[in-house]
Amino acid sequence: TTNIPKSRWMAVLVLSVGLTGGAISAGIDIAVTNLGTARSKLTALSSNDAGGFFIWGGFINVLSFIAVALTLLIAPAAAGSGIPGLKCVVNGVRLENFLSWRALFVKMFGLVFSLGSGLIVGKEGPFVHLCVILGNCFLQTRVFRPVRQSEFLINIALAAACASGVAAHFGAIAGGVLFSIEITTSYYPTRNYFYGFLGAISGAIVWRYLRNLYYYGTPGFAGLILTAYNSTNIRFGMIELFIFILLGIICGILGVTFITINYYGFQFLRWVRLKNRILGNPVFVCGVIAWATALATYPRFLGTWASLAPGNAASDLFNATPEWTSPGAPVKINAGDWLNRNIFLNLALYALTRLILIPLSILLTLPAGLFVPSLTLGGAVGRIVGEAAYRWANVSPALFEGYSIITPGIYAMAGAAATVGSITHTLSAAVIVFEITDNLTPIVPVMVTTIVAVGVSRLLSLFGTYEYSAKNKGLPFLPDLHRGAYRMKARDIMDTNVHCISRELREEDVTKLMELKDEEEFPVVNDYDAMLLVGTISATDLVDLHGRVKVKEGEKEKKEEEQPMRVKAKMRLKEIGHDSKKVERKNKMKGHKQAIEIRSTPVRFVENHPVSQVHMLFCVMRITHGYVTRNGKLIGVITRKKLRDAIYQADKKGTLIH
Amino acid sequence: TTNIPKSRWMAVLVLSVGLTGGAISAGIDIAVTNLGTARSKLTALSSNDAGGFFIWGGFINVLSFIAVALTLLIAPAAAGSGIPGLKCVVNGVRLENFLSWRALFVKMFGLVFSLGSGLIVGKEGPFVHLCVILGNCFLQTRVFRPVRQSEFLINIALAAACASGVAAHFGAIAGGVLFSIEITTSYYPTRNYFYGFLGAISGAIVWRYLRNLYYYGTPGFAGLILTAYNSTNIRFGMIELFIFILLGIICGILGVTFITINYYGFQFLRWVRLKNRILGNPVFVCGVIAWATALATYPRFLGTWASLAPGNAASDLFNATPEWTSPGAPVKINAGDWLNRNIFLNLALYALTRLILIPLSILLTLPAGLFVPSLTLGGAVGRIVGEAAYRWANVSPALFEGYSIITPGIYAMAGAAATVGSITHTLSAAVIVFEITDNLTPIVPVMVTTIVAVGVSRLLSLFGTYEYSAKNKGLPFLPDLHRGAYRMKARDIMDTNVHCISRELREEDVTKLMELKDEEEFPVVNDYDAMLLVGTISATDLVDLHGRVKVKEGEKEKKEEEQPMRVKAKMRLKEIGHDSKKVERKNKMKGHKQAIEIRSTPVRFVENHPVSQVHMLFCVMRITHGYVTRNGKLIGVITRKKLRDAIYQADKKGTLIH
Repeated sequence: TTNIPKSRWMAVLVLSVGLTGGAISAGIDIAVTNLGTARSKLTALSSNDAGGFFIWGGFINVLSFIAVALTLLIAPAAAGSGIPGLKCVVNGVRLENFLSWRALFVKMFGLVFSLGSGLIVGKEGPFVHLCVILGNCFLQTRVFRPVRQSEFLINIALAAACASGVAAHFGAIAGGVLFSIEITTSYYPTRNYFYGFLGAISGAIVWRYLRNLYYYGTPGFAGLILTAYNSTNIRFGMIELFIFILLGIICGILGVTFITINYYGFQFLRWVRLKNRILGNPVFVCGVIAWATALATYPRFLGTWASLAPGNAASDLFNATPEWTSPGAPVKINAGDWLNRNIFLNLALYALTRLILIPLSILLTLPAGLFVPSLTLGGAVGRIVGEAAYRWANVSPALFEGYSIITPGIYAMAGAAATVGSITHTLSAAVIVFEITDNLTPIVPVMVTTIVAVGVSRLLSLFGTYEYSAKNKGLPFLPDLHRGAYRMKARDIMDTNVHCISRELREEDVTKLMELKDEEEFPVVNDYDAMLLVGTISATDLVDLHGRVKVKEGEKEKKEEEQPMRVKAKMRLKEIGHDSKKVERKNKMKGHKQAIEIRSTPVRFVENHPVSQVHMLFCVMRITHGYVTRNGKLIGVITRKKLRDAIYQADKKGTLIH
Repeated sequence: TTNIPKSRWMAVLVLSVGLTGGAISAGIDIAVTNLGTARSKLTALSSNDAGGFFIWGGFINVLSFIAVALTLLIAPAAAGSGIPGLKCVVNGVRLENFLSWRALFVKMFGLVFSLGSGLIVGKEGPFVHLCVILGNCFLQTRVFRPVRQSEFLINIALAAACASGVAAHFGAIAGGVLFSIEITTSYYPTRNYFYGFLGAISGAIVWRYLRNLYYYGTPGFAGLILTAYNSTNIRFGMIELFIFILLGIICGILGVTFITINYYGFQFLRWVRLKNRILGNPVFVCGVIAWATALATYPRFLGTWASLAPGNAASDLFNATPEWTSPGAPVKINAGDWLNRNIFLNLALYALTRLILIPLSILLTLPAGLFVPSLTLGGAVGRIVGEAAYRWANVSPALFEGYSIITPGIYAMAGAAATVGSITHTLSAAVIVFEITDNLTPIVPVMVTTIVAVGVSRLLSLFGTYEYSAKNKGLPFLPDLHRGAYRMKARDIMDTNVHCISRELREEDVTKLMELKDEEEFPVVNDYDAMLLVGTISATDLVDLHGRVKVKEGEKEKKEEEQPMRVKAKMRLKEIGHDSKKVERKNKMKGHKQAIEIRSTPVRFVENHPVSQVHMLFCVMRITHGYVTRNGKLIGVITRKKLRDAIYQADKKGTLIH
């Protein structure tokens, strides 16, 4: 079997993740649907409104409690969406416990309970995380040893697993690949597209097939939401374009509001946790959100439309005719009471409850995503604009007549894509909306609305919600470069206080350096006068050099560092020097007293290197620090943290939150 | 105006390119349609079949001659698709005359004549080139000086112009962005997506709007090809999936055949040109292809279906019902005689003539692309499979019944996407087909067929057709890494014969180095024993050092190099050291006899660096060469050419053409 080229193994690996992921995704969906039916049936047992509410709310509480308990007890790393963590993993920073079997278990079963409970959370983030764990676990098996031997192939495999995850969740293919790129990487190797698409296609096919079998009773590959639009029955005109731009601005602001609630919600919860153990307890917080959710979704309170599962709500918003019936239409409406009281009031209430509950629910200590619920938030807002435009066109037909019929469902699709785009700072949200509905008819309005919304969101907030989450959690991710940061030079951000050692490695210098416990490696110069950078020496090698006693101290230190869930950044590049190091060790054991190995620094910066290039090298080379030289002379060091702080500093001007 | 942040100027620039590009694209389309009508009307003047043929063929000959003449006389750089050249430009290698106003002029008017003549060529490649020239020309204006000052922003702007070009040609948005990435870059900065989408949306909107006004007479944003499929009227089953996989294999082989004809066609033409001036003359070659095209497309010979413009042919193939009528269908059929004689024979003849003529036509010395014509080639082949499957389902209904009705038009769409994907090695061909038809209903079959075809094509041929073109033309592009190349280390490909100079810059060493006329810069070491790499010194600086007389010699050499159309690779990175160099020059003029500037090398390789990393650094840092060190000691050099050759060598095993 070792004769088979590695690229074939790659295809097998990627297909395995996609196919398994697709099946798990369909399984979770079916379990969640059944739990939802159970919730409705149990609630129907009580004809009393208050009694029904307590059953409804109790159900949400019990199931979300199970999800919280599973997460807390088995794998705290599985809480939340997982995408902030994936940002690190896909870029070569290893997080402890993040890709373990335990996390896989919690993501899978925790997700069933958190979604099945009735909390307004999504599956997308956790499910992508699940697929990446799946990919990582498959990689550890014997079959895929040929792949595991190459860091190059591992990276491709994990990126493809990411795409599989998005695709297996939505049944979206191009959108899956694009979204996984936009949320995880800063520099994407084009050659990865092939495996990304392979993973996405296999995931989407299995998910779509099983879903069609279960929900429609026939084999087939229809998507999440059926729509009956096509390019011969829907058209748009120029005037509508301006309404879509307006909708884009509204959705942009909506997205920033979402990001803000989520960001400050996290900080508020952390503050509460510090002040009061009981109020800040994850179980208590979950209870509060669960009862709030119960109030917002109880079918006998606001309306049955309030209790719809996100997918069904989105289907209604995208499909219903303006009069909210579909006479002879192929897609049936899930809630019959959207028009009770007032449609605008209902849609506004729907949007408002979602805008508050989604960004808070995803902060709970359980697996929770935001994508599909946020689609319904944006869908409701888009629908409001669409219904208003429809009425306007009825009043002033001259303005619209001749070439367009207002279709409020298209506005809902545009609003949905734009809002998610604005929340996540991704344009692929639009592509995913197309692929969820298998519908490209509204390509122009949806794309226009989305790019306006993303533009507005980028003006008002520095990052998307995933980056802010990563920042809140203190993850060692490197944000992308925007705004002013690219105007800086390496000299503006370097630390001139570098501790180096001369080539002779004199005992006193070694002792001095060993007092600096934080550093992983030290630069070596030819001598202290010329200061020509020769290479680097690792802290452990230095310890080796210093003697046995110190080694033990070093080990002790290391152990202290390895607390569970403590983030540990590891520079992958180091592994390159592995072979030669081994040889060196062997030589040592044979009794040769050899000079310690000095490793070359593959990347060194010049003082007027633009920060854009420094950032690029940090991203693609996955380094944790780099040295700055002038005519070969060592003059400074730039660390990942330093770079991150500089980006935050330079970019935050003019944004609402930073 | 200098207070306005650069990022806003970027948006203005990208929008300008998109909007202008969209308008030019629509203008070209309208001109070409009118020329096509003129050709038909002129031909109709002769009721005699032979007479009509000579008018038909004469028209093709005259117009294609004008296109060839324009190209030869004004801008030879505008010949062909331009995408191989863009591969270099977008990656920082400047090609002479490639982005000039003259090339813009020829691309615009030459394209009208080459498409209008009736040759079976497409608009996509040349039009993308046109948009990039447009972007470059806009950049040169005073308004965009703030953008021009940053290499970082220039790169984003050119990549966005590329996306605008694809989008303004097809009206495709996500497909435009994706395709432009797949054909030009190896490592894509995710942040460019925003401007890419902005350019694509603006280009697509203007093109779609103007086109709808002209062709449908109403304002609107419908795409190139109308289709009436949607997720409520089309379904597929499991059995069909296997037929689509089979179709994917067929299209993969079809694509490789196309690549092969194009590749060896180029080499044959070059051989003829060397042997015989008249036979190899571009005008003569164009005449031969023009008469062959006349034969293949003359409506009174094979059928009117043979004479359809590619867009109309694709519409028929994608839309017609199996009986090739569309009763009550919203999309009318353009040629009424597809069923004359035998539909399978007609489709096979259509495909065969296209398979031979397209790869040869795009070799002519005129602006010519391949995308839309190749869609019809694949569409015809897909349609054959679809019609066969339809008949099979009628014979064995038990196998298909219950869940699926065979729609041969969907097979045509799948075949079209798969064939173009196979020819270009891109998956975004599928996304473009969705966006051309505004139709995502067949997402699963089209995607499956495309990925199988691309997979087959990658197994059989090392590169897509654009890379082979670039290779044939000797362009200094760096191919992407596939197959075995990533298993090598830096030491396997480095050149150990490096000419270096010691820090003291002794006269005799300088004289010795100056005899090596090919090198642009030399590495500087601290001394010849330790050989520690300090930095580099440019060849011109060395000449400066050596004296005035030698300077003149250097200039003379440079002039000899600057022959028209001679490719000149320039390392952008060099410009970074610009400021400090100026200061140095000033000092010199003041009479200070200063030491010559030694520049730091930002990238240096270690001997067991994987080639994948070396390749990545060449791509993202846009370097032309890099030094290899061991413990700081210079031991070798890797040049772009060396790297390219190594990739060719390692990857070619097992492929048909290399």
